[in-house]
Amino acid sequence: MAEQGLDSLLVTNLPDVFYLCGFTGSNAVLAITASRAVLHTDGRYKTQARQQAQGVRVAIAKKSALLESLALLMASGPTDVAFDGDHISVGALHAMRESLPKEKRKLLRRMKQPIVSNLRMVKDEEEMRRMEAAAALGDRLFEQVLPHIVSGTTEIAVAAQLELAARMAGAESMSFPTIVASGKRSALPHGTASTDPLPRQGFVTLDFGVILGGYCSDMTRTVHLGKATSEERDAYEAVLEAQERGVRSVAAGVTCEAVDRACRSILKQRKLEKFFTHSTGHGVGIEIHEQPRVAKEQEQALEAGMVITIEPGVYIPGKFGIRIEDTVCVMQEGSKILTKATKAWIEL
Amino acid sequence: MAEQGLDSLLVTNLPDVFYLCGFTGSNAVLAITASRAVLHTDGRYKTQARQQAQGVRVAIAKKSALLESLALLMASGPTDVAFDGDHISVGALHAMRESLPKEKRKLLRRMKQPIVSNLRMVKDEEEMRRMEAAAALGDRLFEQVLPHIVSGTTEIAVAAQLELAARMAGAESMSFPTIVASGKRSALPHGTASTDPLPRQGFVTLDFGVILGGYCSDMTRTVHLGKATSEERDAYEAVLEAQERGVRSVAAGVTCEAVDRACRSILKQRKLEKFFTHSTGHGVGIEIHEQPRVAKEQEQALEAGMVITIEPGVYIPGKFGIRIEDTVCVMQEGSKILTKATKAWIEL
Repeated sequence: MAEQGLDSLLVTNLPDVFYLCGFTGSNAVLAITASRAVLHTDGRYKTQARQQAQGVRVAIAKKSALLESLALLMASGPTDVAFDGDHISVGALHAMRESLPKEKRKLLRRMKQPIVSNLRMVKDEEEMRRMEAAAALGDRLFEQVLPHIVSGTTEIAVAAQLELAARMAGAESMSFPTIVASGKRSALPHGTASTDPLPRQGFVTLDFGVILGGYCSDMTRTVHLGKATSEERDAYEAVLEAQERGVRSVAAGVTCEAVDRACRSILKQRKLEKFFTHSTGHGVGIEIHEQPRVAKEQEQALEAGMVITIEPGVYIPGKFGIRIEDTVCVMQEGSKILTKATKAWIEL
Repeated sequence: MAEQGLDSLLVTNLPDVFYLCGFTGSNAVLAITASRAVLHTDGRYKTQARQQAQGVRVAIAKKSALLESLALLMASGPTDVAFDGDHISVGALHAMRESLPKEKRKLLRRMKQPIVSNLRMVKDEEEMRRMEAAAALGDRLFEQVLPHIVSGTTEIAVAAQLELAARMAGAESMSFPTIVASGKRSALPHGTASTDPLPRQGFVTLDFGVILGGYCSDMTRTVHLGKATSEERDAYEAVLEAQERGVRSVAAGVTCEAVDRACRSILKQRKLEKFFTHSTGHGVGIEIHEQPRVAKEQEQALEAGMVITIEPGVYIPGKFGIRIEDTVCVMQEGSKILTKATKAWIEL
């Protein structure tokens, strides 16, 4: 805040609130000045907030956590009240302005840089420990779900078994809707598990993550049911080579677009580039999608301690799709792969 | 749109997009004029959008679904482009303004009334069919989970069994993090399932919902492990009476605050009102929390076809908590309860 010359700050993004004080409730605003931090939530979370929230005073909002946080900051006579424009709606800003006398409205200030999201990109030791634990659970789940991948079972039943095992291992929840996309559906990059049965012959893409200790895992593996065609084998080898090339390109100082290009260059050689229809990856942490984006035209340089996914894929509409994804931690030299499940060809 | 005098509309809230055209992807903006509707999404959803989206043209955005939707509307020379201020961030509005020449910026207009959210409050026949199916699945899950509620089992294991059964029955996902709050944790109104074991003696509150066919169910039941004290029995009877009084108060034309007051009046008679620390309920549909809010000072009148929850609770910190919740459809006369699982005292 001092660096950006901010006098006080309203934190309205719930993952940012969790990052700063550990509170997980669904209604929360943090009001921060140089000398103190107050968490406003509502009556449902009275006990929970006192148990979870660290380093802040807890206040129960009578009506609006946002407006009562703003009133509190204004009462201390600030020179400005900064907010994160990506996590305040136009309607909420309007309500904030309406709650203030005209002469004070100009104190509301949209932050140039989202301070907390930027802090969250580089993980500290405790965060890394949690991310490794979440990724390790992902690895075990992949092993545990393989026996359930049987022709005729529905995609959703495979997802159900994976999610059961996740919960029994203590996961708070999945980090996004589990993707089990089989046969022709594997050509849908975001084919969440359907009631379709798994085919006798074809790919099954599993893309899933857990939330454990507040942190997300993210991993994709593609396996094959029955005997594969040579086209399927070749495409799998191409995606695997692209993914491994992407991982090898990661290091502190390398730009995100360079990592994206590394994956894409292999698929270009294999004449499969036009079937890779999404970006290469994204930051991951408290949220499943965080900064930075690993994509074309992203000039941001990676820093040691950032955690990103590398997930190229090839999707041939009406035929099949393949995606392979690891979560990796950027190191000063190279990277550390958190998701360690095998990427070798699996035919079930 | 004609009623509000709107020339064109940007729909940015994903549940609104699903409501209007059936697309479920995580990146989507609908651009609507009197004569046409275009859905912008990204390359990941190319095939899926064409399969799911009804009554709209599908376009794949090169960079930003929002800015490309705006450009499309602007190209048709509108008198205004309306947006929903509750579902556009201050940052996104800034980006929209920056993408336009100065003289066109004044065409951007925040809607006075959120048209689509308002439409969504009253469910049509197909929506009601889906909500009844989701609620009926909730009822079956409650029956199925009862044998798993055993002293010593963890809360999260109970949630896991419930969620497995939900998925095996075809649920797309849970509609919110499953609450299993036992013993002293039952005094946390939003105590999501933890790794704590169920006690030998005490309440277990189960608050859960599924998403089935795109629509949410929502239901809470509180059961008792072991022999209850008379204080526990009395409090349960009070909450049940309050909940039933709330349900009986529902009918078209009744205000939301009157329903809230009906529940609260019973708890006041029983001297438990101060332990009822949240509002009585909320609308439910494509989202778990929709309009209207059933709370103090909510003067909105209920209309036939609205679907709301009635969920009073009593939470005595350090001791125990109880909540009972049904989802009900507002009828011209009275209401129809969608969640039919028993609310009678259950001692396991």
